[in-house]
Amino acid sequence: MKYLSYTAGSGATWGVAIDGVAHDLGPTGANLAPSLGAAIATGVFGKVTEEAAKAAPGTPEAGIRYLPAITEPRKIICIGVNYRSHQDEAKKADVAAPTVFFRYADSQMGHLEPAVYPAVSTEYDYEGELALVIGADAWHVAPEDAYGVVAGYAAYNDFSVRDWQLFATQWGPGKNFPDSGAFGPYLVPAADVDAGAGGVTALHLQTRVNGGVRQDADLTDLIFDIPAIIAYVTTFTRLAPGDVIVTGTPGGVGRFSNPPALLEPGDLVEVEITGPNGFTLGTLTNTVVAEDTAED
Amino acid sequence: MKYLSYTAGSGATWGVAIDGVAHDLGPTGANLAPSLGAAIATGVFGKVTEEAAKAAPGTPEAGIRYLPAITEPRKIICIGVNYRSHQDEAKKADVAAPTVFFRYADSQMGHLEPAVYPAVSTEYDYEGELALVIGADAWHVAPEDAYGVVAGYAAYNDFSVRDWQLFATQWGPGKNFPDSGAFGPYLVPAADVDAGAGGVTALHLQTRVNGGVRQDADLTDLIFDIPAIIAYVTTFTRLAPGDVIVTGTPGGVGRFSNPPALLEPGDLVEVEITGPNGFTLGTLTNTVVAEDTAED
Repeated sequence: MKYLSYTAGSGATWGVAIDGVAHDLGPTGANLAPSLGAAIATGVFGKVTEEAAKAAPGTPEAGIRYLPAITEPRKIICIGVNYRSHQDEAKKADVAAPTVFFRYADSQMGHLEPAVYPAVSTEYDYEGELALVIGADAWHVAPEDAYGVVAGYAAYNDFSVRDWQLFATQWGPGKNFPDSGAFGPYLVPAADVDAGAGGVTALHLQTRVNGGVRQDADLTDLIFDIPAIIAYVTTFTRLAPGDVIVTGTPGGVGRFSNPPALLEPGDLVEVEITGPNGFTLGTLTNTVVAEDTAED
Repeated sequence: MKYLSYTAGSGATWGVAIDGVAHDLGPTGANLAPSLGAAIATGVFGKVTEEAAKAAPGTPEAGIRYLPAITEPRKIICIGVNYRSHQDEAKKADVAAPTVFFRYADSQMGHLEPAVYPAVSTEYDYEGELALVIGADAWHVAPEDAYGVVAGYAAYNDFSVRDWQLFATQWGPGKNFPDSGAFGPYLVPAADVDAGAGGVTALHLQTRVNGGVRQDADLTDLIFDIPAIIAYVTTFTRLAPGDVIVTGTPGGVGRFSNPPALLEPGDLVEVEITGPNGFTLGTLTNTVVAEDTAED
């Protein structure tokens, strides 16, 4: 089942997409919960039957505006340097622990929304990633219990303002410009990934720019796998339903391509995460747009 | 006027401390706003007269529990390596831009609350700092306009779990353990700092451990001053009333002392920010306590 957050013109809502129709389970429809994040917290997420979803008012997906899969996460925890192929291209040393940085919720946007290239930057880049959403209160979670606190999975594009990321040692500024964290189009319950693809480790991630493949990796290539990430993160901060972990990007980012292949306004960027048997989390698609400085 | 967030046994509230008495202007008292953060957003903060405050129900400060000055900031933006004395002791190169990292609200605690030394760490340290709280929506703020978006000032102790800060290049894990960000006791309106001390740049910061002076610096020693920080931060992220910026720590942290002088359970740590004419933001005091692992 493909859950999503969206608006069909009358306020933010959430629902389930079936056969190209978004069925409204949120405030403007069946109102099972005020948001997809709240649906996870209250246990509604993952329990909606196809029959119940289809009974809710529907809008063709062509007529909706996608919001970030989770619109207001309290915490968006990003893991850096977490594929060998990216570690090698970035010439980074081996690390003893996951590299962790943070995004604010207001840096996010949805599928098909513009990825805004800031006027103050000359280095805008993509990072295709797998995101997971936490489904339970989580503190000091052992690796063997980690999958038990995952509600679902989605594609993420951690668009990076490289110059601002690297002006100083800490990356936060380059990872928090508005409209730079693309998240969606769908959040798929972990149980559906298990049933449909044989588990999250069977997934494959591909990032394309204007149709050309730039990143292409198996989720088994993660240096710190999902249990290791969750165990590490929940040692220093408490997680709660709706919190997001973005698991890292493989080799092939624009900055380290030879020659460098950073983004330009007009570029179409897709992140697609697929699995066996035709399984897919959906293709997250965003077009790069130069910041409109007149709006200030 | 000394604003504060606290509880006197019947839920979180906020108010004003006068002559050792906390007067309740929040939900359990005069209810001028649901929280100190909300009082800033609605313009109540800084406008309460002493007469009005004294008319609200009061509790001796000895009988209250201090909460972080702002209990739930959306954003807590910390500046690293921002005093020459700390840059030198840490042997850091000059930086072209402020070093920025983030704290989550749930890592904070109030004055007199324990600073919890995590069981997984062997390196717990202090960082006395000046914090400012934003008073207006702020985006692309020019340096010359920056003081206009500051609501007030407070002391902060950015307790740092050094080993977890430095396991990888990004510091977030070591800056987000629970009960590690001490904030208060008071938030003093910027206008009161101007009237009482001649402005924030006239302030002096001192950190003491068990009475011994460890950090001792003028606010004029900041490498990136407050206008430069606000201009930089509001170039990459939008700020709003109640957001917090922690401006950096001077030389003298435990890790770089010779010999190293990290904290131990039982240590009493004070951060005091004073100015001319007997002006003070109050002395932020916390005792280091070993994590009680039985609580998990």
